[in-house]
Amino acid sequence: MLRKGERIDQLYAEDIQIIQSSEVFSFSIDAVLLANFARVPKRGKIIDLCAGNGAVGLFLSRKTSAAIDQIELQPRLADMGERSILLNHLEQQMTMHELDLKNTFDVFRADSADLVVCNPPYFKELPTSIKNPNPHLAIARHEIHATLEDVVSVSAKLLKMNGRFTMVHRPDRFLEIVDCLRANRIAPKRIQFVYPKPGKEANTLLIEGIKDGKSEGLRFLPPLYTYDQSGSYSADLQEMLYGN
Amino acid sequence: MLRKGERIDQLYAEDIQIIQSSEVFSFSIDAVLLANFARVPKRGKIIDLCAGNGAVGLFLSRKTSAAIDQIELQPRLADMGERSILLNHLEQQMTMHELDLKNTFDVFRADSADLVVCNPPYFKELPTSIKNPNPHLAIARHEIHATLEDVVSVSAKLLKMNGRFTMVHRPDRFLEIVDCLRANRIAPKRIQFVYPKPGKEANTLLIEGIKDGKSEGLRFLPPLYTYDQSGSYSADLQEMLYGN
Repeated sequence: MLRKGERIDQLYAEDIQIIQSSEVFSFSIDAVLLANFARVPKRGKIIDLCAGNGAVGLFLSRKTSAAIDQIELQPRLADMGERSILLNHLEQQMTMHELDLKNTFDVFRADSADLVVCNPPYFKELPTSIKNPNPHLAIARHEIHATLEDVVSVSAKLLKMNGRFTMVHRPDRFLEIVDCLRANRIAPKRIQFVYPKPGKEANTLLIEGIKDGKSEGLRFLPPLYTYDQSGSYSADLQEMLYGN
Repeated sequence: MLRKGERIDQLYAEDIQIIQSSEVFSFSIDAVLLANFARVPKRGKIIDLCAGNGAVGLFLSRKTSAAIDQIELQPRLADMGERSILLNHLEQQMTMHELDLKNTFDVFRADSADLVVCNPPYFKELPTSIKNPNPHLAIARHEIHATLEDVVSVSAKLLKMNGRFTMVHRPDRFLEIVDCLRANRIAPKRIQFVYPKPGKEANTLLIEGIKDGKSEGLRFLPPLYTYDQSGSYSADLQEMLYGN
């Protein structure tokens, strides 16, 4: 079941096993944060874009009986995700699609999803950007094959009216993100900032929007901290990672 | 020095005395938060809009030798503010102007301020809004005489290029605020959310923008809490109110 260089990691809080590879892709804390932030429909359809090795969708599977479809461009990552689905016996609920975002509607219908979750590449692809020499990691982190606008416009089209879009991203791109959501008929509704530890500026942004939602009623949830003052995971993170 | 119903309160942290009246206007925690959030130029000109009884400008006086001009529409409040300036012997540094925001440029020059601070009315004036029957308080809290757009457009015109605009407001109007700033050439730069206590959603927004600033580089400062879990002022608030 494992290929060269791969290992199986566990998210204890959700009792999910995930095939990882430090040479190719390992899920990050951001995937855990996104899965915990998302408000998941009990049934219907969830789509996980930029799915990587599938961590976010795998974590969500424990909270819902909705079908979970995952879209990942890179064959090596999609293959890992597919084997993690089998490893967790989730093949009745989950499907990994090796697919370029641009070809989403070759496979999916518009207005079909109740929830779209996405942990996209965070960094703009600029001539000056310093990228990871490992192409797997560079594609996951930089907007080489999918920009923010690509991700949001595909998500908006996938969502039913009043469907939810939920994304993790960087706070320094906040204004661009809210502009992009609104330009694509998604009204920002719930925002949570994550701070590396008390006294530091936010380094992660969690945002939820509603397709064709009203523009009023934006809420800012209690802040999260990744680490506490002593350098251990905060109580919130410990619960997300290891459970109660 | 005091009129009927008035009292003198003290902000211990800044050693400032303020004439207040529960029938007319008393400064709120938001004024303290705004004064602490503002990055104050050492010299030059500061303008305090919607100054009320003058609390924000009075607090700022301790951090700078800049001239501080205050603008307040309501004669009763401007009069209190004027007497607080005298009470604190700040008449060389501070001036209270009883003035409608719409007439700002009868008195002030455009492109003349290094910093504009503002604690504006938070609530939209709608036919359905429930307002305080006390007209002094209704005008201070509801956009009866000045809307967000009024306040921001006057501020933008008052500021020099690269001057700072700093405001306290409500998080539920966040998107409208960032849109309004950008429409008036003010680039949002620093944001801080204030939460009533740990585990609650944000109820106060502090925002700073730079006139003609670049759109990149938005920062989210560490969160502030008003109260701690036991219901006492948080350590941050205690320091702002009572000093070290």
